[in-house]
Order: sequence, then structure tokens, then C-alpha cells
Amino acid sequence: MRISQQIFPRPVVLVVTVDGRGKENVMPASFVMPVSFSPKYVAVAIAPERHTFSNLREVGEFTANLTTLEMLEQVKICGSYSGRNVNKFSMVRLSKAPSKKVRPPSITESPVTFECVVEYMGLFGDHYLVVGKVVEEHVKRTEFSPLLHQSGDRYMEAHALKP
Amino acid sequence: MRISQQIFPRPVVLVVTVDGRGKENVMPASFVMPVSFSPKYVAVAIAPERHTFSNLREVGEFTANLTTLEMLEQVKICGSYSGRNVNKFSMVRLSKAPSKKVRPPSITESPVTFECVVEYMGLFGDHYLVVGKVVEEHVKRTEFSPLLHQSGDRYMEAHALKP
Repeated sequence: MRISQQIFPRPVVLVVTVDGRGKENVMPASFVMPVSFSPKYVAVAIAPERHTFSNLREVGEFTANLTTLEMLEQVKICGSYSGRNVNKFSMVRLSKAPSKKVRPPSITESPVTFECVVEYMGLFGDHYLVVGKVVEEHVKRTEFSPLLHQSGDRYMEAHALKP
Repeated sequence: MRISQQIFPRPVVLVVTVDGRGKENVMPASFVMPVSFSPKYVAVAIAPERHTFSNLREVGEFTANLTTLEMLEQVKICGSYSGRNVNKFSMVRLSKAPSKKVRPPSITESPVTFECVVEYMGLFGDHYLVVGKVVEEHVKRTEFSPLLHQSGDRYMEAHALKP
């Protein structure tokens, strides 16, 4: 049984990176979690064969863009192609805005964007664990329904439990 | 806005540890994620003032026990007291079973338990990021409704999206 079917569901973020020449890439990740409240830190696990990983090696910055249920199709497309071969920003209808403190842009449709500087990368099994310090955040909406991933092409939505 | 209200919801795990004398503690954590498929690794963020953190410093092993909606009250109780002062296993109705490869026990009611050996601990902001290699797993149920945390006393449940 895959670990993604055991520790689930997980919020999907779109991770935006750039290479040394400034060429952008975007990939969905759901091996993601908050690490610290103040200052804010986020952790994300990235497989070393991903184009995003090569970019992080060249430019240790990323934006983590939260997603909503409405962004399901865009997330699926971003996860189906490698940024080595195609420009995913132009394939899917995602708008980007320049970030304030890092080189990778933010995704406009995302309700919350964290601008992050990489402070740690370590290989554990088949993924690198990447820890980013949040140096700027953009809260565009405070109420949204997060898109959640289980495993493969299975996605979920969340509902509040009565207190 | 707290990062727990932004990257949400997150599956709740009960983290079981022991001190050098074998005294057990259990705490709920939702800053948790899978890191690697094969071998399996999990990451969990623990605040340094937690009794669980002292235990991990003494004995670098833990079990990560997934939770279900039915375990909400037990999770709330485990999160409301410090293991320094009370024995939470006896406070709540949680049964424990000996682990195979680590000293901390497993929680019987948990649908999935990972026995983990700590391979990395690093401080980022107000939490330590702890990475554990899964050395044994117990899958007691493959179908369950995971208990999810948002922030504070707000919990959620998940439903599958139609493919």
C-alpha cells in the first residue's frame, strides 16, 4: 500500500521555480506541510528527477501556491507534463504575478501564495525534503475550499466537523 | 493569519514516544506528511517545549498512528494535557500493543501505524522538523475516514471528488 494512500488527504500546492536563466516551471505537490508558525516555514518533498528539483538546485527559491477545488483541471495538467518539455503556464490558464522577494512568480488564481527561500534540502528515500522560509505572503482570499490529494488521480474535498 | 489556517486540512496522527526509562507519551500532530514511497519516510514537526520532543531526544524512535473520525474525542484529550503531568493512555480509551522494531508502542485503534526511527531533526522557526524512516508498518484497516485538522479546535472530514 502506497504511503500516499495511508497519510491522506493532503492539500495540493503549486510549486513555482525558475532556472538560472529565469525560465519558470510549475508542478503540483501534496507532500507538503507547515513547519513553523512564526516565522513561517513550509516543507515540501520533491523527487530528484523532477525539473523543479533541478531548478531548486540552481535557484534556491520557490513560491508555494495553495489551490482550490476550482483549480482541479489545471492541477491535473500541471502534473501530467514535465517542465523540461513544455511551458505549463501557457498550457493551462494560470496567470502569474511577479513576486516581491524571490525570483519565481506567484500564481494569481491561488488564494494564498508563500514566497520561500530554501534553507534545507535532504535526501530521504526517493524524495528530497525541502524546507523553505516564508519571506513574503500574499493572502488573496481567506475563505476557500482547498483541493486535496489522495493518491494517483484521486482528489478530495473537506467539510468542517461540528464542534 | 496562522499558517495552520492556510495549509489545511491536514491528517492527524498520534505520535507515541518513550523516555529513557520506557515511560510512554502520546500527542496528536497534524504538521505531518509522507516524504518517500520506498523506503517509506514520514516527516512531523514538533515544538521543542513538548514532552514528545524531550522523549525523542532521549530515544530517537516513535510510532505514527493514523486517526479516524471516530477518534476525535481521544485526539482532543491527548492534545489538551502534557505527558509530563498525566498518563494520557490511561486518561483516554486508547489501547496499546507492543511494536516490533521500536520501543514506543502502537495504538490499537489506529487503522495504520508506522514504526519509525528518527534520521533527522532540525530546528526551523518554532518547531523541530523530525524525519523518521518507517521500519515496520501495521495496516489494520485499508478503508477509513481520516480525521483532519484545520486550526485550534476545528476539525474536518474528507469526501472523494468524482473523477
